[in-house]
Amino acid sequence: MFEAAELGRKMSKKEFKAIEPDLHTRLLKVQQQLKASNTAVIIIVSGVEGAGKGEVVNRLSEWLDTRDIRTNAFWDETDEQRLRPKFWRFWQALPGRGTLGILFGSWYTRPIIDRVFGSIEEGEFEKQLQRIVEFETMLVHDDAVVVKFWFHLPKDVFKKRVRKDKDIPKMKIKRSPLLQKFSRQYDEFASVSERAIRMTDKGSAPWHLIEATDAKYRDVTAGQILLNAMEKKLSDHEEKPTQRDEAEVTRLTDEVEANRLTILDHVDLSQSLERDEYDEKLSHYQAKLFDLAWQAHNQKKSVVAVFEGWDASGKGGAIRRVTRAIDARLYKVLSVAAPTDEEKAHQYLWRFWRHIPLSGYISIYDRSWYGRVLVERVEGFAPEDDWKRSYSEINHFEEQLCESGIAMVKFWIHLSKEEQLRRFKEREKTPWKTHKITDEDWRNRDKWDAYEAAINDIVARTSTEYAPWTLVPGNDKKFARVHVLETLCKSIENIVEPEEKPKSKGRDDKKK
Amino acid sequence: MFEAAELGRKMSKKEFKAIEPDLHTRLLKVQQQLKASNTAVIIIVSGVEGAGKGEVVNRLSEWLDTRDIRTNAFWDETDEQRLRPKFWRFWQALPGRGTLGILFGSWYTRPIIDRVFGSIEEGEFEKQLQRIVEFETMLVHDDAVVVKFWFHLPKDVFKKRVRKDKDIPKMKIKRSPLLQKFSRQYDEFASVSERAIRMTDKGSAPWHLIEATDAKYRDVTAGQILLNAMEKKLSDHEEKPTQRDEAEVTRLTDEVEANRLTILDHVDLSQSLERDEYDEKLSHYQAKLFDLAWQAHNQKKSVVAVFEGWDASGKGGAIRRVTRAIDARLYKVLSVAAPTDEEKAHQYLWRFWRHIPLSGYISIYDRSWYGRVLVERVEGFAPEDDWKRSYSEINHFEEQLCESGIAMVKFWIHLSKEEQLRRFKEREKTPWKTHKITDEDWRNRDKWDAYEAAINDIVARTSTEYAPWTLVPGNDKKFARVHVLETLCKSIENIVEPEEKPKSKGRDDKKK
Repeated sequence: MFEAAELGRKMSKKEFKAIEPDLHTRLLKVQQQLKASNTAVIIIVSGVEGAGKGEVVNRLSEWLDTRDIRTNAFWDETDEQRLRPKFWRFWQALPGRGTLGILFGSWYTRPIIDRVFGSIEEGEFEKQLQRIVEFETMLVHDDAVVVKFWFHLPKDVFKKRVRKDKDIPKMKIKRSPLLQKFSRQYDEFASVSERAIRMTDKGSAPWHLIEATDAKYRDVTAGQILLNAMEKKLSDHEEKPTQRDEAEVTRLTDEVEANRLTILDHVDLSQSLERDEYDEKLSHYQAKLFDLAWQAHNQKKSVVAVFEGWDASGKGGAIRRVTRAIDARLYKVLSVAAPTDEEKAHQYLWRFWRHIPLSGYISIYDRSWYGRVLVERVEGFAPEDDWKRSYSEINHFEEQLCESGIAMVKFWIHLSKEEQLRRFKEREKTPWKTHKITDEDWRNRDKWDAYEAAINDIVARTSTEYAPWTLVPGNDKKFARVHVLETLCKSIENIVEPEEKPKSKGRDDKKK
Repeated sequence: MFEAAELGRKMSKKEFKAIEPDLHTRLLKVQQQLKASNTAVIIIVSGVEGAGKGEVVNRLSEWLDTRDIRTNAFWDETDEQRLRPKFWRFWQALPGRGTLGILFGSWYTRPIIDRVFGSIEEGEFEKQLQRIVEFETMLVHDDAVVVKFWFHLPKDVFKKRVRKDKDIPKMKIKRSPLLQKFSRQYDEFASVSERAIRMTDKGSAPWHLIEATDAKYRDVTAGQILLNAMEKKLSDHEEKPTQRDEAEVTRLTDEVEANRLTILDHVDLSQSLERDEYDEKLSHYQAKLFDLAWQAHNQKKSVVAVFEGWDASGKGGAIRRVTRAIDARLYKVLSVAAPTDEEKAHQYLWRFWRHIPLSGYISIYDRSWYGRVLVERVEGFAPEDDWKRSYSEINHFEEQLCESGIAMVKFWIHLSKEEQLRRFKEREKTPWKTHKITDEDWRNRDKWDAYEAAINDIVARTSTEYAPWTLVPGNDKKFARVHVLETLCKSIENIVEPEEKPKSKGRDDKKK
């Protein structure tokens, strides 16, 4: 594959000067137009060490209006980044709509280096590349332009650059300390990179292989490819005012429309607990949860608990029974409110990636990313193609959380329509509960069937092995609370290693 | 001091039940009102280990509407947090206007623990407390309600809680692993805490000492104090529609108004460089900067370079000469644009704290926090009292950056009014420069004198020993660029330890 970038292409200073002004002017213009049409542009700069990637980054920055550019380098990881799922730091760096992000190094860097140095097997390597394809597809669906550059140097040119050749003036070729480090693995890098490029070279996010021997040719070619990609997106917008490529959207059938009976009809709402039994079980599971939370913390394991449910289903009360049982240092409740304008300018999962917990902590979501396929679907806030695609995007998201060692528990607290009515009326009468009942709640109640259909789809499409849904019978609050605590304890038990209990209370010889 | 919280105060279940509903209802109401008036509430929960601080946090969360609460625990630090200035993580956690933040542990935790265990001296301890006072004053000036709780346990009660008393049911008193850890230092903690409380007990952010022996008394007292503080803020708002306390605002005199000559009149704009000399010096300092940037990175030292200047003064060109000389992995250019709504909902320095670099990197600000005392002052976007207070807030901010090992360089690129006019006209004629000249630039030009006065004040008030301003003569772009590079190199040289150069190029024995 790389032979195509070993043809000795060059550009004279004269040619460069003839091309540059027009390229510069057109890049600026199309950047402004894409800004106006709220399109994000993601530029990935990768390739052989020593190919002058940093210089390309600088050159592109010069040609574009820097005020709307964010450049991020990915080459080393901080401790904090290692304490989060792999893609967390990339989500942090994604440009908002209407802006341009240059990634110097990217999600490709780590898998390639890890494979070259043998710290991951071929199977894991391919899995990570598959994740990348899913991730880039999602970005493209979100209407971003993704331009991927691979800068190549033929082996002889590379070797020459590594040698500290006195004839080359110092600032002509900057030798980073990394150049030496990677110099012995040229062939391994070439072979692994070739596979990475081939497996991730998709129509929606294709690779552009550029010969980097000559700096002027390298920069102009990159500029022209970028210009073409941006201009193409603009003309796509003009052709079809709808942002989505119809052909690419996976068509999903609505099982519910054919079948009025939903998964919620199978929840046994008659289950309840007497006060005595409740007190005993509550205190048993709370004590257990307190210990498990500390164990999980000590073992750097995390828990994400998602709470969804009907209005007045007792979500808040259930959450409080959970938080009372956990040391306040170890958990965080995240109430999901309307997105800020910064959040709206990104893919809808961005705001959840923002707040992914560090390893060792418990995050409790009071409502969650399921809003996309729940309220946004029912109220028509998101176009149908968008929310239908969301199920698989959510599954990928949750899969990545679980792979990073997070236990996921998802609760839907169910109750009957009659019980909801009773609670609404009670809320209207109780002074410290009136703020909890608004006109919106009554409006939502009118859309009960539409919500029921949405929940059915959610459970059908996103109850996975790694992140299953728990449908909680909520007509009896006591039963619901204990059920939630018990489920949560079980999930944490699944991820923590048992701690050996000291026989006598006095001893302090904890196992590590 | 703590004797006042050792009186054995208690509350019966009956009393509690009589008080709670009204307290609960009123807390909810005042929370809604403060939300409507866009006021942030910051609640600091501190005190003796084992006093049930976590339970207080839970109780307050139950009484308030959790949708607008953010709870943050501060007790351990991640690697990433240690790679930033001390206050960085607190800024991250500050509640936006109209919301409520509960800090379980806070900016008091680390200084107290460090002092108790002797890892900082008394002088450093007092300095850190002074920082806290400045920080809290700033929050209060930003119209936040700051409520600080200290929960105290008499020594005998504390000792009883540490002993694993079998009679106490497990969930009644939760024993965190930290309890044991701190148990032997009760007296030292009491003495150090007492000093911390006394030194930071200011009228605008007073301490509330609460006896925590009895849980019901503890929670109700905290709830009532919080209620009072919130209601007081509301009635303050009603009394004076202006948010600021006139008496508290430091009155500054405008030196410029009395004296038309500004500091800018002393900049020698006639300085210039010939092409040959420029080429030579540029390449010399760029090569030097490349090495210094890597040295700083290897030694985990950071640089913050602020670029301000007249429109068309060549800020962008100067920045590019800098970035071309630094490995693209090691720097980030931050263009300061209009704040997002999330940023607007916080104190104006919040958005700059958000993007503070990790140790070892160079941040280049294309415009900066000085917008507050520059464009916001001149255009009247910020009330006079606000921007006048900003000088000292900015100085505190920069002092903290420098204390964490960051080198600060601040450039004002100056040019004559005539030269600006010439450049404006040139921009209008050059295709790839037209986007750089807008009606706004012409409008700003009309306000030249007002900006000149603002800059004079900025330099007079914020050119500190740790973060001095460099006024760059910018009529000759070549001279300006070399001057910027040279200054930057000197600043980095000041913070890096010299690396011993190997005699022979072949050797690899780097000094660490």
